[in-house]
Amino acid sequence: MDKKGILIVVSGFSGSGKGTLMKALLAKYPDNYALSISATTRTPREGEMDGREYFFKTKEEFEKMIAKEELIEYAKYVENYYGTPRKYVEEKLAEGKDVILEIEIQGALKVKEAFPDTLLLFVTPPTASELKARLVGRGTETMDVIESRMNRACEEALGMDRYDYLIVNDDLDQCVEEMHSIIRGEHHRSSRNSRFIEEIREDLERMKQ
Amino acid sequence: MDKKGILIVVSGFSGSGKGTLMKALLAKYPDNYALSISATTRTPREGEMDGREYFFKTKEEFEKMIAKEELIEYAKYVENYYGTPRKYVEEKLAEGKDVILEIEIQGALKVKEAFPDTLLLFVTPPTASELKARLVGRGTETMDVIESRMNRACEEALGMDRYDYLIVNDDLDQCVEEMHSIIRGEHHRSSRNSRFIEEIREDLERMKQ
Repeated sequence: MDKKGILIVVSGFSGSGKGTLMKALLAKYPDNYALSISATTRTPREGEMDGREYFFKTKEEFEKMIAKEELIEYAKYVENYYGTPRKYVEEKLAEGKDVILEIEIQGALKVKEAFPDTLLLFVTPPTASELKARLVGRGTETMDVIESRMNRACEEALGMDRYDYLIVNDDLDQCVEEMHSIIRGEHHRSSRNSRFIEEIREDLERMKQ
Repeated sequence: MDKKGILIVVSGFSGSGKGTLMKALLAKYPDNYALSISATTRTPREGEMDGREYFFKTKEEFEKMIAKEELIEYAKYVENYYGTPRKYVEEKLAEGKDVILEIEIQGALKVKEAFPDTLLLFVTPPTASELKARLVGRGTETMDVIESRMNRACEEALGMDRYDYLIVNDDLDQCVEEMHSIIRGEHHRSSRNSRFIEEIREDLERMKQ
């Protein structure tokens, strides 16, 4: 089987708990996965460290990275750039690690376009009412905030079928196993193992003679 | 997630050990899987029981099943019919079991055409030389037999990339887990969960109002 890593994009509803899920997955299987670190032009918050939460860049540096095609995808939110540096991702894939990008649907689709083998995973709570409960919070949010969160969830739900797999985040441990098992399974896709198939075919032909 | 079973076709090189693999999978996970039983017009061999190894039919009965579209696929080898009865498969799928058909590539592609959601798995030894060793046997086969087995393996290899996943049969226990994990993963495909996606969308829209 192919030993090259798979590029994985994880998206999901805000409130789906995907951040916690990623952390648990990496803690349990540190040899299998690498989490991509984004580059950004926004100011570091207290406690954030360059190269851990983000690669912090000036606007000029970031635009140079864009020009040199050093980013797999990037976007601008509220005057700040966010993007995925290509080098780290390619290095880790070559090492045989599955590299996880935690980005939103627009970025996910851009990555899939550039790398058609990308695996797209969408994390969701088991039901809409549980999602709503998480979005509404503990009665401390204003109606405006709740409305804007619900609108966003409706938009996010429209993109769900563009993803390859749905990960239902109910019980955390079970969810980690589910995700790990889906990714392990993907390594066995015949479309990801064309070299293995070619080799078996050539060897059998040669042995026949 | 969708509770309906998945229709699974398992093919593989002769000598890949897929029969043993199926038995081990069903023994370990009897609640998850059902093995489809073929209908045939060939004479029962000693020890074979109707409804266990095969459903034994007369030529007339079999042709009536064809006419009534009671078979998902069928083929004729050496003057005998072999086919997959539809009723058993559909009953087990509705019960939520994943139903496994162990058939060859021509049948596999026919099933996939009739049921596009069918999952196609191909069982292979890890290398061509290991496959050859199994095909050649223990030095007791004539050159003719070996040549015909090698020719057949070369043909079978040509169809490998029509399958969704490759299952490398090296260690049996590991292989059972691999296969189970691939199938469990498939249940999470977004394309197999369109109803779940629809429900989340509708519920979120309704809750927004």
